[in-house]
Amino acid sequence: MTDTFDDVYFMKKALQEAEAAYEKGEVPVGAVIVVDYRIIAKGHNLTETLIDVTAHAEMQAITSASGFLGGKYLKGCTLYVTLEPCQMCAGALYWSQISRVVFATPDPHRGYRAMGTSLHPKTQVKEGVMEEEASALLKKFFKEKRD
Amino acid sequence: MTDTFDDVYFMKKALQEAEAAYEKGEVPVGAVIVVDYRIIAKGHNLTETLIDVTAHAEMQAITSASGFLGGKYLKGCTLYVTLEPCQMCAGALYWSQISRVVFATPDPHRGYRAMGTSLHPKTQVKEGVMEEEASALLKKFFKEKRD
Repeated sequence: MTDTFDDVYFMKKALQEAEAAYEKGEVPVGAVIVVDYRIIAKGHNLTETLIDVTAHAEMQAITSASGFLGGKYLKGCTLYVTLEPCQMCAGALYWSQISRVVFATPDPHRGYRAMGTSLHPKTQVKEGVMEEEASALLKKFFKEKRD
Repeated sequence: MTDTFDDVYFMKKALQEAEAAYEKGEVPVGAVIVVDYRIIAKGHNLTETLIDVTAHAEMQAITSASGFLGGKYLKGCTLYVTLEPCQMCAGALYWSQISRVVFATPDPHRGYRAMGTSLHPKTQVKEGVMEEEASALLKKFFKEKRD
């Protein structure tokens, strides 16, 4: 049981958030923030529901985690998110000095790397955890939008 | 009187917001969003007060303007902000497709241009409006912090 709380475990929780976004007709992206193997914040994309381009999953999770911790820096925290962060979210993560970012599926067009945005130099990045599942949910959403 | 509602007029309003941030011990940055010569949203930096790195002046103004307009796109709007936006705020402005961004003083270290972030290709940018006043307020704040 030592591997229970691994990256796959927490990405599954982020995927549950993405599914909650999907159920609301939102682009299905979900995020959780973890410190010491404990989820301290969750969020899913609500840009349509809240009529607000800033309401990405990561932004809500960052705000929520800071509130929980009582401090605006997320050192020691890991963000799990189902899609590579955009430049806005990467910019917020930069300010938070978060220790680690794990994302499932890359975003070759609007992802922070393609756009040229910088995370904090101290932030470690891992990609590809549960990529297939996260990508399948996004593809399903956009296919249904088109049809 | 035809020049009353010009860029200087609205930047003065953004500077009033920056002064409100200063009074709260926040890094003094303020913003307003204008459509058809009318201010529809205001914001000032509240990152310390709200314990939230996402609480920049621009982010609050974007959220507020979208709520006022009932739509998440800020086409036809101008953002006036006293400091060059960071990459997070530029990323939010990118998603909003805002028509115009006017800022007072450049941020050569953390501004979106130095960081490599992109605004939307349709967004026009003007800098240097009330630069001296905005810069003086920031310098006063940081000098007092150091002393």
